[in-house]
Amino acid sequence: MEAAGSLGPGEPQPPGTAEGAAPMNRSGGETGSEAKSVGFVLVHAGAGYHSESKAKEYKQVCKKACQKAIEKLQAGVLAVDVVTAALIELEDSPFTNAGMGSNLNLSGDIECDASTMDGKSLNFGAVGALRVESSGSWVDVRSEQRGCWEGIKNPILVANKLLSEAQKGKLSAGRIPPCFLVGEGAYKWAVDHGIVPYPPDMMATSCGEHLVRTMLARECSVALQAEDAHQALLETMQKKFIRSPFLAHEDSVLGGVIVLRCCKCSLESESAINTQPLLVEFLWSHTTESMCVGYMSTQDGKAKTHISRLPPGAVAGQSLAIEGGVCRLRSPMT
Amino acid sequence: MEAAGSLGPGEPQPPGTAEGAAPMNRSGGETGSEAKSVGFVLVHAGAGYHSESKAKEYKQVCKKACQKAIEKLQAGVLAVDVVTAALIELEDSPFTNAGMGSNLNLSGDIECDASTMDGKSLNFGAVGALRVESSGSWVDVRSEQRGCWEGIKNPILVANKLLSEAQKGKLSAGRIPPCFLVGEGAYKWAVDHGIVPYPPDMMATSCGEHLVRTMLARECSVALQAEDAHQALLETMQKKFIRSPFLAHEDSVLGGVIVLRCCKCSLESESAINTQPLLVEFLWSHTTESMCVGYMSTQDGKAKTHISRLPPGAVAGQSLAIEGGVCRLRSPMT
Repeated sequence: MEAAGSLGPGEPQPPGTAEGAAPMNRSGGETGSEAKSVGFVLVHAGAGYHSESKAKEYKQVCKKACQKAIEKLQAGVLAVDVVTAALIELEDSPFTNAGMGSNLNLSGDIECDASTMDGKSLNFGAVGALRVESSGSWVDVRSEQRGCWEGIKNPILVANKLLSEAQKGKLSAGRIPPCFLVGEGAYKWAVDHGIVPYPPDMMATSCGEHLVRTMLARECSVALQAEDAHQALLETMQKKFIRSPFLAHEDSVLGGVIVLRCCKCSLESESAINTQPLLVEFLWSHTTESMCVGYMSTQDGKAKTHISRLPPGAVAGQSLAIEGGVCRLRSPMT
Repeated sequence: MEAAGSLGPGEPQPPGTAEGAAPMNRSGGETGSEAKSVGFVLVHAGAGYHSESKAKEYKQVCKKACQKAIEKLQAGVLAVDVVTAALIELEDSPFTNAGMGSNLNLSGDIECDASTMDGKSLNFGAVGALRVESSGSWVDVRSEQRGCWEGIKNPILVANKLLSEAQKGKLSAGRIPPCFLVGEGAYKWAVDHGIVPYPPDMMATSCGEHLVRTMLARECSVALQAEDAHQALLETMQKKFIRSPFLAHEDSVLGGVIVLRCCKCSLESESAINTQPLLVEFLWSHTTESMCVGYMSTQDGKAKTHISRLPPGAVAGQSLAIEGGVCRLRSPMT
């Protein structure tokens, strides 16, 4: 499970948490190379176990995802589309358990979930059990034509398309547009909406069940209304995850989360020169052995990457690591 | 979307809410006709619009579901299995939008979701987009054998089976058992676990999207930790549903919920005679034109049914109705 959160300028954002893809607005400028946008992106390549021998590859894919996202932010692309661009890098890597690098299901096929959310409208798009790669084949009953199942290379593209279609409002006869599609229906909807299927030719965790049962992303999002983000995240991971009543029978609770929070600072001196700096707090926390993250702002020349590990002696599934930082973004002159 | 909640005796239950199927424990006695169990069941046959002309049919199916549930409770059946029995009645009715009576999807097939939860372990089982009835056909690539897709008549049976399998603990190699399966994978899992598919031969809402976006059942469950259930439900429906920020752009927010809450009373006089009465609060609330409910306790000879309607002049999607009652259950002598 991989995720990215990104913040563009505009109004203050609700806390963006993952796993899942977090929200944002149109960046300040017009689309095009002239646009001067500010923003910040935070991605992770899974909470689990990252061996030292492959550390370079994990960091490399996070770096690439951040750089792709910042390019898009600087080009004035919508924040949800920025997150999608970052996630495509993660889905396309054979080192991450998403898209092409995913674990196989019991039938030996790859089926993926993906979701994205817009922090302003609170709309979301989600797909489940979407076929990425299948070993199976088909026969058309009428034409007797045979073939192999095609897959959708990037499930996040379908989630993003569901979100953008939902933002357009109701369908005919007052029908509510779909926000969560699964399986064959998701595949058909994607193809009907212009997403090109991919012939099978590719290959390659954390505990998704624990995240789902505890609704960890939502709990973090609620907790981060509080003033002290670090303290709020620490308490949430302890009380709502490790000691969650929903996981009372588990002796090992495994997962991780990334958080982005943003607020406007209004210091006297700065309002005088008509800029409004944005303060971005970024945090990650995990109960797994390790978690690989990357982050970058529009002010940075390159992405920073890091593999966070539990402190020595800490037991995975019972202890947690929490780290992060703060970044100050200067808005472009308006 | 139909739902049932049931309470058996034993320890006090967490508030059970729906849409979805609410939890419970093994009833007091041994399985068998001798068992003297107490309990209560509350079902609904959808929040939407129930015409006067079909009122009798809606009430009839609620009545049948309640009576089936109470029979099971009296026989000492597990509460999750009691709820399943009630929901099978609702799924089998052509008047309810569940199972055989469901709305068709865009392809003209019936695909259903179903879920159930155990209030004690907080485990759940859920299926999505499970094929109930399909107009399609298949060809086996190797044998050239042809046929029609079979469906699963009762999706709730699959959800219940997922729950009961999950209660058994981990699978081989420490794998976490599935709690939520969709589409073809859900179908295959069901058949592999002994649920008999059904050849296609049958036929026939509220706003599921609004319930999902606001996580209404969860919000109600959290709110009902408060003392005054009626007030807590009223406020939740107003603040977390009709005025939810997740539905800010909707001018009509449609849905309904049923709630069961249970506590032990310990009056002096009663503890003296060694019985411990259970106080069951049951409530329903909806923003749709109407909602059809049924309820029954093990002390009743027959089920009560009712179609709740918005007050005159109230606008569906912007106003709500809230009703309910209290039932006092006497535990059998111990």
